[in-house]
Amino acid sequence: MSAEQNQPKRKTNVEFAGLSNSERVTSRHIAKAAGVSQTTVSRVLSGSNLVTPDTRARVMQVLEEYGYQPNAIAQAMVTGRTSTIGVVVDGITNPFYPELLEAIANAMEGSGYRMTLWSSGAASEPAAIEAISQRLVDGIIFTGAVADSPALQEATKGEAPLVLLNRYVDGVRCDTVTTDNVSGGRAAAEHLLSLGHRSLGVIGAAPDLSTAREREQGFREALAAHGLEPWIDRGQPSFHLGWEALQELATMPERPTAVFCMNDITAFGVLSAAQRFGLSVPGDLSVLGFDDIDMAQWETFNLTTVRQPIVEMAQNAVRLLQERIEDPTRKPRHRCLEARVILRDTTGAPGARSGRS
Amino acid sequence: MSAEQNQPKRKTNVEFAGLSNSERVTSRHIAKAAGVSQTTVSRVLSGSNLVTPDTRARVMQVLEEYGYQPNAIAQAMVTGRTSTIGVVVDGITNPFYPELLEAIANAMEGSGYRMTLWSSGAASEPAAIEAISQRLVDGIIFTGAVADSPALQEATKGEAPLVLLNRYVDGVRCDTVTTDNVSGGRAAAEHLLSLGHRSLGVIGAAPDLSTAREREQGFREALAAHGLEPWIDRGQPSFHLGWEALQELATMPERPTAVFCMNDITAFGVLSAAQRFGLSVPGDLSVLGFDDIDMAQWETFNLTTVRQPIVEMAQNAVRLLQERIEDPTRKPRHRCLEARVILRDTTGAPGARSGRS
Repeated sequence: MSAEQNQPKRKTNVEFAGLSNSERVTSRHIAKAAGVSQTTVSRVLSGSNLVTPDTRARVMQVLEEYGYQPNAIAQAMVTGRTSTIGVVVDGITNPFYPELLEAIANAMEGSGYRMTLWSSGAASEPAAIEAISQRLVDGIIFTGAVADSPALQEATKGEAPLVLLNRYVDGVRCDTVTTDNVSGGRAAAEHLLSLGHRSLGVIGAAPDLSTAREREQGFREALAAHGLEPWIDRGQPSFHLGWEALQELATMPERPTAVFCMNDITAFGVLSAAQRFGLSVPGDLSVLGFDDIDMAQWETFNLTTVRQPIVEMAQNAVRLLQERIEDPTRKPRHRCLEARVILRDTTGAPGARSGRS
Repeated sequence: MSAEQNQPKRKTNVEFAGLSNSERVTSRHIAKAAGVSQTTVSRVLSGSNLVTPDTRARVMQVLEEYGYQPNAIAQAMVTGRTSTIGVVVDGITNPFYPELLEAIANAMEGSGYRMTLWSSGAASEPAAIEAISQRLVDGIIFTGAVADSPALQEATKGEAPLVLLNRYVDGVRCDTVTTDNVSGGRAAAEHLLSLGHRSLGVIGAAPDLSTAREREQGFREALAAHGLEPWIDRGQPSFHLGWEALQELATMPERPTAVFCMNDITAFGVLSAAQRFGLSVPGDLSVLGFDDIDMAQWETFNLTTVRQPIVEMAQNAVRLLQERIEDPTRKPRHRCLEARVILRDTTGAPGARSGRS
């Protein structure tokens, strides 16, 4: 906003925030060095077509000599673009999100876009809302969005270019990239059924997460085909939840012989508590995760899990967002990527006494 | 930048980016509804003292009726403040950093500041540099800074309010918050010496990290008092480095009986590879970490480690930065917080056959 514009001034000597010299350089210096009027300098900077190509080139050369870099805000006012993409991440202490962020950063390399991050929560989400409402970003990727996210509400209200990555939210019409969570849940069940398990549990089936809902749905469908129904824990997936669920299972007279955890970190909680309470894995309990984060293959875990293609998810999200920014009126597209079971050491036949202790 | 300011216009009809109505509302609408001139509207917005309190109240009321929220950039131009703090994080896939970020976000709650994040690297660091050079943040916290960080160079060049958290950088004069890494390294050595170890190693003693340099220094000093010198691995601390170091150690004819890892994630690599190559911990090898991230206490690791007070570090950094923003001329202050050894299961007397396998 330029309150100054109402002042009856001519030839205001504008300072250039984009000039990296520590000495303040003004439009007067530039005009003098280029042999043009200050008005001409202003016109060049605002992209006016009242300047001849020769004059524009001369002014730009002087600006470059003075170390001029276009001011982001000024450029945004002229072009309507900031070249910055915002990424909102939920639950950054789950290692899945840092891995996804790293994949997004890699996917953006060479795209000409810069990345700014916000975590959800009291301190950071208001910054995201501010940036979205002020259009300080050209577009936003939400990873792990939930329906009541204020930043997501701001983005949909303002019709900002937006991609939901990993989770979708009912009623939000936009580009989405997810794993095929229903198929993933089904594949998990089929793996455990093929090992002979008939008493199965699901840990972390939180109803407000589209990911957990779909993974549970696929799992249930495969069990229903055998006339089976799973034991269900509806907590928010976390290490702590997995730990507590195992503690509960350890004392159950007839407990499931296998559990499907809604993400890997929850499975790690189950494995840790199993060690604490003396249950052997997979002898006493088979444990299956979802995500296949780096840690899943560490020898300390060797977790059988359903792999999400994290790198491919990130690449698709960045590509869809760029295309959305280019053409905001395009119909929303949905990418649903394949999930598959990665066999490791935490699943086996029920009662098999081999494996980890 | 206001190229427009050079135009000989009066009564330019300014649009208000801060108005949330989709219809474009201009200073003319506001002036008319409030019964004042457009110049008066501008003066109210710029905080000029040429407006009477009554007039200001009338204009503000009309602005509010139109849904006006102060535009962040406009407000920054008037007040010189953005109420946003930037945090630059290095190596987000090390769980120490997400924990530190969460602690920083918690420390900022209720402070009136918002948090924007950048990771170092090609896609995100340029966004940090842009925001710093354009003063879109009031101050910056660098976690895990290294000397050749372009964002850090931009911040020091522009004399932006800045706190180095966790690591410091030689030659950068600013507020710093670190753990007492020298004492931490000394305590680690004294613990292992007290268990009877005389052949000791350090893994991840990267010379470019102030943290690793100081931890190694303290460790060496304590060993030197017994006429001992450690075996040293100078790689960048990571899970992968720890894994490879253990692989090397496993084949050494005379290997150290205890290793001090420069962070917990490196220690997890050592523990995982020990499982792979059949070395028992602590029987064949005692393993000591640094950080005490949440995972260190998981039963799968039960890692003896040197604790950094993560929450206290974050609180100190936020406090110092706020004070620096209030008084940019104050002398830099340095907070050095206590580190202490947390005893768990991965250290024991050399050759003791008990413990994990």
